[in-house]
Amino acid sequence: MIYFDHAATTPVKQEVKKAMDPYFSDKWGNPSSIYGLGREAREAMCEARQTIMGILGAERPSEIIFTSGATESNNLALKGVAEAAAFEIGGPPHIIVSAIEHHCVLDTAKHLESSFGAEVTYLSVNEEGLVNPLDVEKAIKDNTVLVSVMLGNNEMGAIEPVKEISGVIKGEREKREKKGDKTPLYFHTDAVQAFAFMPVKVDELGVDMLSLTAHKFYGPKGVGLLYVRTGTKFAPQQKGGAQEKGRRAGTENVPYIVGMAKAMEMAEKNREAYSKKVGELTDYLVKRVKEIPKIELIGPKNKEKRLPHIANFLFKGVEGESILINLDMLGFAASSGSACTSGSLEPSHVTKAMGYSDLEAHGTVRFSLGELNKRSDIDELMKHLPGIIEKLRAMSPIKE
Amino acid sequence: MIYFDHAATTPVKQEVKKAMDPYFSDKWGNPSSIYGLGREAREAMCEARQTIMGILGAERPSEIIFTSGATESNNLALKGVAEAAAFEIGGPPHIIVSAIEHHCVLDTAKHLESSFGAEVTYLSVNEEGLVNPLDVEKAIKDNTVLVSVMLGNNEMGAIEPVKEISGVIKGEREKREKKGDKTPLYFHTDAVQAFAFMPVKVDELGVDMLSLTAHKFYGPKGVGLLYVRTGTKFAPQQKGGAQEKGRRAGTENVPYIVGMAKAMEMAEKNREAYSKKVGELTDYLVKRVKEIPKIELIGPKNKEKRLPHIANFLFKGVEGESILINLDMLGFAASSGSACTSGSLEPSHVTKAMGYSDLEAHGTVRFSLGELNKRSDIDELMKHLPGIIEKLRAMSPIKE
Repeated sequence: MIYFDHAATTPVKQEVKKAMDPYFSDKWGNPSSIYGLGREAREAMCEARQTIMGILGAERPSEIIFTSGATESNNLALKGVAEAAAFEIGGPPHIIVSAIEHHCVLDTAKHLESSFGAEVTYLSVNEEGLVNPLDVEKAIKDNTVLVSVMLGNNEMGAIEPVKEISGVIKGEREKREKKGDKTPLYFHTDAVQAFAFMPVKVDELGVDMLSLTAHKFYGPKGVGLLYVRTGTKFAPQQKGGAQEKGRRAGTENVPYIVGMAKAMEMAEKNREAYSKKVGELTDYLVKRVKEIPKIELIGPKNKEKRLPHIANFLFKGVEGESILINLDMLGFAASSGSACTSGSLEPSHVTKAMGYSDLEAHGTVRFSLGELNKRSDIDELMKHLPGIIEKLRAMSPIKE
Repeated sequence: MIYFDHAATTPVKQEVKKAMDPYFSDKWGNPSSIYGLGREAREAMCEARQTIMGILGAERPSEIIFTSGATESNNLALKGVAEAAAFEIGGPPHIIVSAIEHHCVLDTAKHLESSFGAEVTYLSVNEEGLVNPLDVEKAIKDNTVLVSVMLGNNEMGAIEPVKEISGVIKGEREKREKKGDKTPLYFHTDAVQAFAFMPVKVDELGVDMLSLTAHKFYGPKGVGLLYVRTGTKFAPQQKGGAQEKGRRAGTENVPYIVGMAKAMEMAEKNREAYSKKVGELTDYLVKRVKEIPKIELIGPKNKEKRLPHIANFLFKGVEGESILINLDMLGFAASSGSACTSGSLEPSHVTKAMGYSDLEAHGTVRFSLGELNKRSDIDELMKHLPGIIEKLRAMSPIKE
């Protein structure tokens, strides 16, 4: 098999597996227990948290909340802030999200809108999938309490102007301060896809909350984190225990927490070389796939504005799903967008937000590269892909 | 170390570890992906689900929702039903929980009360920690949509009359049906502590929802499930993906799901022998600890009404925490109640609900036995425990 779907998930690295291993059947205590075995587990978690703090540039251990993954982190960020703010401002809070966020942000925003009375602005993006910071500025209202814009998009790789948006938010906070208005305004970013490829320091980015999940960078599936800056007013969602300082109850998944820290440490250390290697492979992929007629690389044209591992192509007049099935039969793994929406017949909301039609949005295939790839994989792909596209176009009822 | 805290957590069995192992770095696909590697992971999950369905007597695969553990499952059960019901009945729903539920049920109930407008009845228990099914009957109101009573208590082991409560609920449902009243009424049980020791079949118990977590029966920490009977109206909480038929979004933790199924299979197979062995050890522990003056075994007197692995003693005139610290220094692991509340200085809500004073509630120590114990562990404990109690009583300012 040749795997072009690193944005969906990655295998657990041997070093990560080895780091987790002792915490299953050897140092298996409940970290909340006071005796030696519990302390051992607690210390492992504490060490993992210190490692992660260092990598993200967090100031306090309590700023890192371990979760079951990015979906929980993103749900928690939005619900946590909206709930605390509603209580504080005594009226419906307003939140701003970009239209190209992952469904776990968008669906939570919709839920807050429909069941919680929150107001939500869905920020549009340009045809390259980029948010305009000025649009954020225009969208901010008196009751805006949260802006959530992802760092790097999972479907077409756009790197969003998070630092610039953070500047806008700082400006608005200063205005509120001058007016004596105590309505909080926080900035959350989903850094899930970006982390392996660009430095993710919370102060440099200027964010108050940040979500990560381990399985996108060679850690296990089922563990993630939410960074929450000290002072952020935030209502916990999963209740019933003193874990994570009461902000995320439930017995901690010690092996995976240790594994995530190890995976982050390795990603941090290898980031530059990894980004360069993967970026070059992606460049080569783009160059080769462009040999096929009537295709378009969607997302930012300037590759500096795109995560180096993602290339999403629009194959005109063909269904993405049909391409994927044909590729799968030949042993190539790619996807038509987020794995989380597989099985859904809806066209990608990301592609549509960039201005493509439903028909066009159905014709996209995302290739996402990583450790498992080499240049010859792309040559191998190109032995088959042009033929598949030609065949499917010949069969297709859609003619231009 | 001698471990008497199996109710807090258990080590991962080698067979479970072996079952999980291939899903980290070998069969590591995202189960939502359509290609071969994804299918492989999906099939492993599907097989795990089938195994679990068989064990619980569930009828459909969609009735098993995988979660990150019991805390999530219990939060989900209460919030899920309350939210869906509020929408359906168009007014505040009423829920009934027992006063001795785990904090993850009680804190969720309190949240629904304070932030969601739900009405909650906290059912009292008798001095043995048992709920009276007649009290459930009396507590049911026209807007009652959920009753949540645990199968076996985690602190003192009381086996609650779940089948009888289920009978009460069936009766109320029939009444509503006759009146043409469509207000739903569901029954949830937290079977976390009971599963390893008594048959847990959803139809025999007569429950609509049931929570489990793997780490209480030699599976990993960080995975659990919520059984939800087909037809139960239920609002998902973690949003943003098609996983678990849209009822729990997020990339699935395939290794742990496979591990949980294996741990359940083993627990099911060994249940009778394990319960007998652990029950005999607990009997011996109780007999020996009773050699110490002024102690009381709390919970049901009739051992048929107590989970076989739990013995919670009230040591009069001593602080439980001091006993634990002394035991820890000698290499014995026990606890003062739920591990989830460690660090809290509050006396146990369970002990208090049984009518004990704050002072008495502070004097309890829970021993919970399991695979790691043998008879000689208890003899070893009894070489030290009487002396510890005597010393602490001599030092204590609390005199009777």
